[in-house]
Amino acid sequence: MKRILIKELNEKFIGNTVKLQGWIKTVRRLGKITFMMVRDRSGIVQVVYEGDKVIPLIAEEAAISITGKVIKEERAPGGIEVHTLKEGIELLSGVVENLPFEVKKADQSVNPDKLYNHRALSLRNQKLYSIFLIQSALMNGFRQFLLQEGFTEISTPKIVASGTEGGTELFSVDYFEQKVYLAQSPQFYKQMMVGAGYERVFEVGKAYRAEKHDTSRHINEYVSLDFEMGFIENYQEIMDMETRLLSWLLNHLSLSCSNSFNLLGVSLPTVPEKIPAISVEQAREILKEKFTKQMPASGPDPAGERLLSKWASEELNSEWLFITGFPSTKRPFYTMFDPLKRNITWSFDLLFRGIEVTTGGQRIHDYHMLTDNMVKFGLNPEDYTSYLDIFKYGMPPHGGLAIGLERLTMKLCDLSNVREASLFPRDRNRLIP
Amino acid sequence: MKRILIKELNEKFIGNTVKLQGWIKTVRRLGKITFMMVRDRSGIVQVVYEGDKVIPLIAEEAAISITGKVIKEERAPGGIEVHTLKEGIELLSGVVENLPFEVKKADQSVNPDKLYNHRALSLRNQKLYSIFLIQSALMNGFRQFLLQEGFTEISTPKIVASGTEGGTELFSVDYFEQKVYLAQSPQFYKQMMVGAGYERVFEVGKAYRAEKHDTSRHINEYVSLDFEMGFIENYQEIMDMETRLLSWLLNHLSLSCSNSFNLLGVSLPTVPEKIPAISVEQAREILKEKFTKQMPASGPDPAGERLLSKWASEELNSEWLFITGFPSTKRPFYTMFDPLKRNITWSFDLLFRGIEVTTGGQRIHDYHMLTDNMVKFGLNPEDYTSYLDIFKYGMPPHGGLAIGLERLTMKLCDLSNVREASLFPRDRNRLIP
Repeated sequence: MKRILIKELNEKFIGNTVKLQGWIKTVRRLGKITFMMVRDRSGIVQVVYEGDKVIPLIAEEAAISITGKVIKEERAPGGIEVHTLKEGIELLSGVVENLPFEVKKADQSVNPDKLYNHRALSLRNQKLYSIFLIQSALMNGFRQFLLQEGFTEISTPKIVASGTEGGTELFSVDYFEQKVYLAQSPQFYKQMMVGAGYERVFEVGKAYRAEKHDTSRHINEYVSLDFEMGFIENYQEIMDMETRLLSWLLNHLSLSCSNSFNLLGVSLPTVPEKIPAISVEQAREILKEKFTKQMPASGPDPAGERLLSKWASEELNSEWLFITGFPSTKRPFYTMFDPLKRNITWSFDLLFRGIEVTTGGQRIHDYHMLTDNMVKFGLNPEDYTSYLDIFKYGMPPHGGLAIGLERLTMKLCDLSNVREASLFPRDRNRLIP
Repeated sequence: MKRILIKELNEKFIGNTVKLQGWIKTVRRLGKITFMMVRDRSGIVQVVYEGDKVIPLIAEEAAISITGKVIKEERAPGGIEVHTLKEGIELLSGVVENLPFEVKKADQSVNPDKLYNHRALSLRNQKLYSIFLIQSALMNGFRQFLLQEGFTEISTPKIVASGTEGGTELFSVDYFEQKVYLAQSPQFYKQMMVGAGYERVFEVGKAYRAEKHDTSRHINEYVSLDFEMGFIENYQEIMDMETRLLSWLLNHLSLSCSNSFNLLGVSLPTVPEKIPAISVEQAREILKEKFTKQMPASGPDPAGERLLSKWASEELNSEWLFITGFPSTKRPFYTMFDPLKRNITWSFDLLFRGIEVTTGGQRIHDYHMLTDNMVKFGLNPEDYTSYLDIFKYGMPPHGGLAIGLERLTMKLCDLSNVREASLFPRDRNRLIP
């Protein structure tokens, strides 16, 4: 008999014999009757077994196959249950050791280390499980929107001869006889691919930052949702593309993941037709006037980001806020600047629910302007020959952005630590599983 | 005026003024008339400029913006051309150095190193460009099929504390105070995610092999198309899923990339409803009988793969051939074996046009069988605690496979070297761009 998924069970099956496979979530015995909740990837159903003492195989979290009859039962969750006999229960894979924690309570645990040590088991908790269904839909939605917009997907190297942003915070790799690095971002490569003629490219790939600090918003290996587009008029086009992307993406999530969001008890944000944008200087004023807080020269710090988000949410009714016009000295050398005010870049961050989830902007496309700027930044253009190459041959005006997948997931799912939004987080202290 | 794409130009625009942006592919001057072929990401159109001497800006590969009138012209490619005046031509980004090669001849070059040194420029060649439109569609098609089949996308760490297959051929990374490695495959993680309750998972991600040899079929960083599925009955289910995947994928490619395949002058293979499968022992016989070639104990070598593919194509009319039943000693420790013939594994390779493009099989799901097998392989289960964990708590029967994206692309596009199917290939000698 062919297995059917639990979500496929409906009134049409009443009276029929079906085969289900999944994990036993709970077992209860009342007299001669055993009630099991069985879960597969699609749902949960109650299975009832009447007969002698509980079969020793029937343990919580064991993987089983059940062949039984579908019965209408008003009192069962979903109005349907499956009745089986001893011979209808097949153990596929047993539990060989006591569970380290109760799976159903894993989302409330006070010992995150224990959960991460048993990460796969903890993900059997329905809430934790939901986070990564949402993340899967997020990655897919990001790509589908951009494919519709004429973007091409690329996969660029994560092993690089030198760093993008000037050589700090890099992990080094022993590559045969050479010392090389893990890429901090696909920045150079996505720009090169714009210049290669694809014009619009995106990548969903790993990025690495050898940052030592241990915060709730940093992990050392993360997924960067990147896009880059050519023949732009200005950096607002990038912000407009992101606004449309987010709007599309949230609609996609509400259609594909409503169960997961309900389980998590969170509601999806709306994306305004135009996300409000303020300059770094306006941000400084707001922080000073409304919150009597000083802002560093580089732009808002984490506490400032939280306050600005709060302000935007309360005053502008938007959970999203662009910050623009970061100073040239605080952005990478390839960032386009305002030719009339050279210290102001045509760049932006996007804040969402108190945290920066995107960095983007227009890039310098003129070869001479770019090499001049490198020198201003204390870099030697000769160290960047292969990156600079395409700028010699008609590199169009372009720009792009990077969204941190785990940060966006964290905020959409109302998690308190970015690690919870990474399947197998990597930080200074955690390398397993 | 808003830019329109070249592919949008049609008879409806005749007589209208439009704005185009792209790169100048060729320039010809006849008397007072200049003919330019202008290309954007969507297509090519002829632009005609009548007037004084060629504007110095007009150089091949420069990025320009053209505002001009759409004219019906039977003799122009596509039956349409755009007429412009001096003031309708805007240079967006010039060419500051002589081109290192003729872009239109880049696909026939005899100096691949030069092409890779100027990779982005060489990709402006229409044939080389097409390869990565196909690759983008391949990645997307792989995911879309699996999402339809109830798979969840995952992103697993590429920084790992130890290797999957026993510690050889790993690149090491300096990770703060520790020495760690780049993942050779997501094998352990995708299995863990099956056990975490997702049952069916896939990943499109980088994999790293520190293999020193320099062949046309190896690169050191590649994209692995992985899936893994739980609650299977046997390993044939994995082969069936791959057959359906390939069939769907090739249909998807024929719908979305026919222009690219035409440009490359290659035709898409068909996928038989059932891809023929032979055992390693049958392969040995065939190689001996038909080609008087000895086969190594581990299975066919590259020359053997080519001969077996030739045989399948000629005798079975299939460009695809499964090889099954590899010996246990030649497959990783986690490979499920036939309990009646312990030396035979329930695993397979898929050959396509002379090369292995997939390795897959059923995995051991029983905790004790798995730890016993580790010991047989000379491994210490204590070194694999975090991987083994989920096997203690109801790990269902499962299996999966990995497809090499670049190899599949290479063979579909009839390329002679896998490097040509990697945007920025990495091998022992090449780390840039």
